Amino acid sequence: MKKYFDICATTPIDSKVLAFLNTESKNVFGNPSSIHGYGQKSKAIIERSRISMAKAINCLPSEIIFTSGGSISNNMALMGILKRGDHFITSSYEHPAILNVIPFLEKKGVNVSLIKPNKDGIVNPIDIKNAIKSKTKLISIMHINNEIGTINPINEISSIANEKGILFHTDAVQAMGKTQINMQDTKIDLMSLSGHKFYAPKGIGILYVKDGINLEPTLFGGGQESNLFPGTENIINIGAIGLAAKICSENLEKNISKVQGLDDYFVELLNDSNIEYIVNGANRAPGILNLSLLNTKSTSFIINLDRKGFAISAGSACASGATKGSHTLNELGLKKDIMDKSYRISFGKFHSKKDIKRLFDLINKSTN
Amino acid sequence: MKKYFDICATTPIDSKVLAFLNTESKNVFGNPSSIHGYGQKSKAIIERSRISMAKAINCLPSEIIFTSGGSISNNMALMGILKRGDHFITSSYEHPAILNVIPFLEKKGVNVSLIKPNKDGIVNPIDIKNAIKSKTKLISIMHINNEIGTINPINEISSIANEKGILFHTDAVQAMGKTQINMQDTKIDLMSLSGHKFYAPKGIGILYVKDGINLEPTLFGGGQESNLFPGTENIINIGAIGLAAKICSENLEKNISKVQGLDDYFVELLNDSNIEYIVNGANRAPGILNLSLLNTKSTSFIINLDRKGFAISAGSACASGATKGSHTLNELGLKKDIMDKSYRISFGKFHSKKDIKRLFDLINKSTN
Repeated sequence: MKKYFDICATTPIDSKVLAFLNTESKNVFGNPSSIHGYGQKSKAIIERSRISMAKAINCLPSEIIFTSGGSISNNMALMGILKRGDHFITSSYEHPAILNVIPFLEKKGVNVSLIKPNKDGIVNPIDIKNAIKSKTKLISIMHINNEIGTINPINEISSIANEKGILFHTDAVQAMGKTQINMQDTKIDLMSLSGHKFYAPKGIGILYVKDGINLEPTLFGGGQESNLFPGTENIINIGAIGLAAKICSENLEKNISKVQGLDDYFVELLNDSNIEYIVNGANRAPGILNLSLLNTKSTSFIINLDRKGFAISAGSACASGATKGSHTLNELGLKKDIMDKSYRISFGKFHSKKDIKRLFDLINKSTN
Repeated sequence: MKKYFDICATTPIDSKVLAFLNTESKNVFGNPSSIHGYGQKSKAIIERSRISMAKAINCLPSEIIFTSGGSISNNMALMGILKRGDHFITSSYEHPAILNVIPFLEKKGVNVSLIKPNKDGIVNPIDIKNAIKSKTKLISIMHINNEIGTINPINEISSIANEKGILFHTDAVQAMGKTQINMQDTKIDLMSLSGHKFYAPKGIGILYVKDGINLEPTLFGGGQESNLFPGTENIINIGAIGLAAKICSENLEKNISKVQGLDDYFVELLNDSNIEYIVNGANRAPGILNLSLLNTKSTSFIINLDRKGFAISAGSACASGATKGSHTLNELGLKKDIMDKSYRISFGKFHSKKDIKRLFDLINKSTN
């Protein structure tokens, strides 16, 4: 795990969360909709987790909807708000779980405006403001970009939306654990989170739906999760995401500061070396570096590191095979030959300076 | 667990599957879309599970789509096939994850015919045949009813559909482990399964999509699961469902025979007693009994059993609170006062004759 530098793709499970999974997978199995004791024990885990989750991001428990992951949350937010004739604003470097919903929305009769990030990889609030039309119903801008780690001015953009009576959604999948998320400080109406990006298991996500927002269901069934996400609840993973959120929020400042220190150290090592590099994007979250290493060739470089057990990434892991090249770097206007030499290195709370140094040494050796 | 008689609502996790979960949740976490070793290890678990799952129901691995559960699979099957102007035939006692999709389909311009089961709780193939119109695109009939355990003549109905060039879907969520499922013996085009009904964890399901069927995606994202179910794969639960399917299929005859023996024993005990009872539905799967106990009152009876740690159910657990009364019994034409005294008792491979006797004794005591 010490050689794993791809936490933006997914994180390992926190050891306390693992302990919870191991114990509760055996002990708790009732259907939360059953009125007997087995069912009520499961129901209690879900509701306790909802409270933990809400506390972690400072919102009401009733505003937390458990889903099967961030991608589904994104789909539900967009499909549940936008109707024929509505106008929708989003950025051109969103996750595929936003961008690939667009053709479906357009077929339904929704008009879509795609806003490009600036060359630093930030969405400019002025560009959003200028794109607003009378029919604009929803704006969706990601909080932290998954490929280059740039932090968008979500508070400012959500305020612009709010002033105009437009709903605001953010895909904050990469933000949890890397920056403060406080629902009382912003005008966010809908927000997607994913457990496996903050040390919870895979297959569990959150859709935050602000109290009073009328989100139409996209999927139908037994009425679970306020009628929004049907099916017998994934109790154990629901319990796990609540616990992971608690651990995440209680250690947030400490972990951000630690990872920022590692990030600074890594950049310092690069600066002091002969490696020719560019860090893509400005206003980065700590621990996400999109690096163009000018003396390398993407595939062979990654494979070389992988042979030694070190994991880094070429772009995001979300597109099939992840070998198509980075759509984010493309939106930033990077040249193809630079893009092909760009890598995402992401590290987290479980790494040490020693781990960073080992990675740097290997990169230094591989680029010379 | 010995006092848990509600396996139709959900099953506990098989001990071998639990062992898998405990080991692999720690060891495997890479994103299956990543090209490095961590990712490829995860990818291998998924593809191995797909092969196990396919082997268990005798189909091609490429016909297995992993979803987050049976409800989502049902939604995907219906929404992905039916378009404006199409005609859809289903039964009036399907699971809410079929019935509650209907208003959405109708709004989209799909015409729907609801076929009532006969008084024994079986869908008559002749009724399906008579409902077919020139625009009929899809027929969906559940394999085993979740409230009364009746087995529908799926082979016959799927053949009728097939002969007319109509697609056939079955919600087989209750069938896995309770009857033989062999995709080569039927004309099923689409089939939904759910892990937590056959001793796998919750939050994982299957949509079988026959080779060559053009199912449109309902949800959009990174292209996972043949572009049908987006989001980073729930690797561990995917591995678990494949293992559970293997265990299930390898022990199927033995378990069916065991549970049938327990079922016969339970009915024998009822027959030899003074309890006034009716078993609702004919051609039942072993281990699912919907009983009207004429000397009881639903809520107080269940609560009384629950106090002693015994879990049975009033109808299905899939509707919120499960206290609204059984929609299946309603479709069978049962009178309200009988419906209110009807209970679902379901047991499985982990029960013994002694467990059944203990349950019977308690019921006998409670009804006198």
